[in-house]
Amino acid sequence: MSEPSRRGPYAKGVARRQQILREALAAYAESDSSGPSLRSIAARAGLSERGLLHYFPARDELLVAILAERDTADRASFDADTPLDDLAAVAAHSARTPGLVRLFLEMSAAAPDPDHAAHGFFTRRYRDLREVVARKFRRSGGGNPAPAVDPEFAARILIAASDGLQAQWLLDPSLDLTADLSRLAKLLESAVSR
Amino acid sequence: MSEPSRRGPYAKGVARRQQILREALAAYAESDSSGPSLRSIAARAGLSERGLLHYFPARDELLVAILAERDTADRASFDADTPLDDLAAVAAHSARTPGLVRLFLEMSAAAPDPDHAAHGFFTRRYRDLREVVARKFRRSGGGNPAPAVDPEFAARILIAASDGLQAQWLLDPSLDLTADLSRLAKLLESAVSR
Repeated sequence: MSEPSRRGPYAKGVARRQQILREALAAYAESDSSGPSLRSIAARAGLSERGLLHYFPARDELLVAILAERDTADRASFDADTPLDDLAAVAAHSARTPGLVRLFLEMSAAAPDPDHAAHGFFTRRYRDLREVVARKFRRSGGGNPAPAVDPEFAARILIAASDGLQAQWLLDPSLDLTADLSRLAKLLESAVSR
Repeated sequence: MSEPSRRGPYAKGVARRQQILREALAAYAESDSSGPSLRSIAARAGLSERGLLHYFPARDELLVAILAERDTADRASFDADTPLDDLAAVAAHSARTPGLVRLFLEMSAAAPDPDHAAHGFFTRRYRDLREVVARKFRRSGGGNPAPAVDPEFAARILIAASDGLQAQWLLDPSLDLTADLSRLAKLLESAVSR
């Protein structure tokens, strides 16, 4: 085998992986919440299903790589310098791709298994994302008046935060679920119907 | 076959199911986040694995029934009359049973599939829980001073709520992810480091 170089087979493999991931994101963008089949992703990339899996060690590795590629694409619109409120723009993007939302949920449910392809990705993702978002709050926090919120909003958020924190806690048991939820309940209570 | 009666085979089946679910919760309470095997739950109930599945149409039906049984047990300590802050006590219970937290996450990832055993359970659970929690906020909200929060707390909550809201939204696409997250970001910003 020839030495890998920028123009050699290694670079070709990298370029092909990138192309597959771009096609996969495009396929998810056109799909409903059940997501596209591996076969249809492969077809878009001009490959058979077996040919597709030649570029990724296993099916789950491909699925995690698709989520990582979405993060890279989202980061273009949400990085350390964009304001906090732009996280909502990322959510709006999610709302247009329910298949990726469901894939995210499935992989996050698999992530607590240390042998699963999603374990490292989710552990790093939560750690890095918490840092980036905390830095934004440090810059922008304080001074603004609290918005008034309705009880239904408060309920959705408290339940959502409880579920989402448990997913983070499975990967980082040092988080204090009880303290966080108790403080959030107090914060929401203070803002309800003012 | 004899007519089912309180003392007949039907009642016996119900009692046996209840016993299996109690044993399952006890097995989860003693397990780490990977959870107990079906075999060990069966053994606690004096059954083989095949015998265990005689009482539930399928494995997933048993797993969803275990989550429903946990909710019933939690409801004893968290119902419509207990104050909001007691949701934190439910979280504290979760923190002692990581296997159930992981089972919850796995089943909630499967719930968007309308044919999955978890679909009806999670759809009802979110709807009912949102109502109960909103009623609590309606009673208790307003008037209290907002607690000061640190940027790391704000980051954990915003990320958790984003993930948790997406799980609710997959089951109820009428939820407005973007509006909810934007409002939560503003509420957290107003409370950071005051």
